[in-house]
Amino acid sequence: MTAKNAFYAQSGGVTAVINASACGVIETARQHKDKIANVYAGRNGIIGALTEDLIDTSRESAENIAALRYTPSGGFGSCRYKLKSLEANRREYERLIEVFKAHDIGYFFYNGGGDSADTCYKVSQLSEKMGFPVQAIHVPKTVDNDLPITDNCPGFGSVAKYIATSTLEASFDVRSMAATSTKLFVLEVMGRHAGWIAAAGALVADQGIPVVTLFPEIEFDHDKFIAAVEAKVEAHGYCTVVVSEGCHYPDGRFLAEQGTRDAFGHAQLGGAAPVVANMVKEAKGYKFHWAVADYLQRAARHVASKSDVEQAYALGKAGVEYALQGHNAIMPTVVRKSSDPYVWEVGEAPLSEVANVEKFMPRDFISEDGYGITEPCREYLYPLISGEDYPPYENGLPKYVTLDNVGVEKKLGPFEV
Amino acid sequence: MTAKNAFYAQSGGVTAVINASACGVIETARQHKDKIANVYAGRNGIIGALTEDLIDTSRESAENIAALRYTPSGGFGSCRYKLKSLEANRREYERLIEVFKAHDIGYFFYNGGGDSADTCYKVSQLSEKMGFPVQAIHVPKTVDNDLPITDNCPGFGSVAKYIATSTLEASFDVRSMAATSTKLFVLEVMGRHAGWIAAAGALVADQGIPVVTLFPEIEFDHDKFIAAVEAKVEAHGYCTVVVSEGCHYPDGRFLAEQGTRDAFGHAQLGGAAPVVANMVKEAKGYKFHWAVADYLQRAARHVASKSDVEQAYALGKAGVEYALQGHNAIMPTVVRKSSDPYVWEVGEAPLSEVANVEKFMPRDFISEDGYGITEPCREYLYPLISGEDYPPYENGLPKYVTLDNVGVEKKLGPFEV
Repeated sequence: MTAKNAFYAQSGGVTAVINASACGVIETARQHKDKIANVYAGRNGIIGALTEDLIDTSRESAENIAALRYTPSGGFGSCRYKLKSLEANRREYERLIEVFKAHDIGYFFYNGGGDSADTCYKVSQLSEKMGFPVQAIHVPKTVDNDLPITDNCPGFGSVAKYIATSTLEASFDVRSMAATSTKLFVLEVMGRHAGWIAAAGALVADQGIPVVTLFPEIEFDHDKFIAAVEAKVEAHGYCTVVVSEGCHYPDGRFLAEQGTRDAFGHAQLGGAAPVVANMVKEAKGYKFHWAVADYLQRAARHVASKSDVEQAYALGKAGVEYALQGHNAIMPTVVRKSSDPYVWEVGEAPLSEVANVEKFMPRDFISEDGYGITEPCREYLYPLISGEDYPPYENGLPKYVTLDNVGVEKKLGPFEV
Repeated sequence: MTAKNAFYAQSGGVTAVINASACGVIETARQHKDKIANVYAGRNGIIGALTEDLIDTSRESAENIAALRYTPSGGFGSCRYKLKSLEANRREYERLIEVFKAHDIGYFFYNGGGDSADTCYKVSQLSEKMGFPVQAIHVPKTVDNDLPITDNCPGFGSVAKYIATSTLEASFDVRSMAATSTKLFVLEVMGRHAGWIAAAGALVADQGIPVVTLFPEIEFDHDKFIAAVEAKVEAHGYCTVVVSEGCHYPDGRFLAEQGTRDAFGHAQLGGAAPVVANMVKEAKGYKFHWAVADYLQRAARHVASKSDVEQAYALGKAGVEYALQGHNAIMPTVVRKSSDPYVWEVGEAPLSEVANVEKFMPRDFISEDGYGITEPCREYLYPLISGEDYPPYENGLPKYVTLDNVGVEKKLGPFEV
């Protein structure tokens, strides 16, 4: 068998550890030059494949590739672009095949979340539907932790560790100030549909912090919420609120709704924290502070979870190994064997069962009143934030790598996406 | 000389390292039991002295006191409360003397910023004006870095390291997304009057990040700002904006002004980031994300600067040593001997020259266009964020200490503050 090239791309919102998966893919491929000649990365995700804008990763030193393990963000650029179905946009699939043929690509590694699993699944069908042999493997990545089958998703553990740490630290702060000043601190976290990230903030209750958590899974009830906050302030002198950006009223309206929509018609979120803070202020008069973590949370490699980094790398590595074993249309997964001590291994899931399925918080992970988490949820979360994996520092700042990203010479004409 | 007791209190907004100063004060006092019998901490700052609500720090184990070195926030509680002048509120000074006498207090260590330096200075005058012998030492603390004479203020280095790190990480993130999605990231940072914290965000320009910084020292000019952002996006595909909460129009109106005011009539800030992001969106149409770091930045002990932690401890220690040498009405300072290599030593400043003086960014620290920093500013900032000093972790979270804070038996009647 002649060696084929591999295509690797990053998709969707990036994370603190998606580059660790890239590192796992590239380092593992480099150990199998007899089967994978080279890894071409898509510049800005699948767009790079469509426009034949490929990055020659063989031009990067081993040191630079190793540095991806501790560099947040998408080192090759990512994109928000979902392939339509073969029927709806055959032109794009024909172009992919054209590019793959031109560059002798036999492996397709796609590193993303739910939408990307769908794209990857469609590509995996090219062999069958269009007679082009390509093995497509989806390497999971999403801070939202909402992919099915896998116990958890690389990217989530680190954002969870960041949010739990930040909630703890800010709660200590407001506790110090509460006697004469701030009594309410509101932190807004990511999670449009699933409350996994907010749940991480709720962990600080174990350290005696009075925290009220607002999940997207629980419809917002103004009066009940105010009463919950008031009870905490009465008992402890202060209260911390962790609110998901996706928290919404029974009619579906987001707390954060600003009336603006993005290019896809999604409501542009951000701003639940000030809404909630002002709501409490109006009802109870408490002086407040609020924060919106936004990109800081998903980029916070400086406080990444060691287990998350290891899993991100392992699933990238496993993706290549599964491909070399001839697998197609699958996603490597994390299989939890034990929570305490934490033991996990790599498994695999068929993409047909992954694509377009969202995993929400189980109701029994959320406390009965809807504002906290339960013991099973704690048992689930703690292993995912366990361990530290600090990046190297230089001049007081993390020493992250910016790749050279040298392009592969084009062989085809232009393509409009 | 019989041993006297010391009073220690934390004042104003807390920081990631104010407890390191407390640790320096208490550990050093414990080494001089012949002169300082005990350290009583004010519960919630000076309020604790006025209400005779004192904490007996001798009841805390050496281990707990040592843990203050890596615990953010104010371990004894802080307050926002400024003593009026002796003429305007003699009653409070008489009460302080009453409490100090009842508990045999001869040393007053006040750990705070500008307002607190003023309070400490007033207390230092008690011996002269009211015939009560007390030595008052101000231990500097402020994330705003706006105290005069000292080269820098404990608390600033860590918030600077957090902001520079977070700006770097979020900028890597937006760089990954810019081809098809977010092109603008706006981070709002603290600094009502002085732009020191924002300047730390500007450091990322050294790593090739296109960053536009908005300082409180520079009047905001809408058109010029939009042009600056547009130039960065044209050249790099994306732009990061770091905006001080205190950024304002020529007429003094804050960008963030929400129309609400706090108990002291100060405009309640927070929200410059969404204002700026929407402003650019309207002018140029760029998709944006924004974050407001708020308390997260000043509480972020998990990414503290080693030099900051060392200085916070050293100035607490020096405060006690100066007191034992008979000094009064002074503040220990950081004296910079060299930037590269970074060499500093402890000095002292008379409180009469510290109280009510604010130190702004020198104009030659800000680039000519007003949106960046200069080489002298870089040379000033880098040593302050140098080195890492991680807290211990347990179950994936920093293991911070919550003190027992056992009260001292009251000897006096109540007092209304």
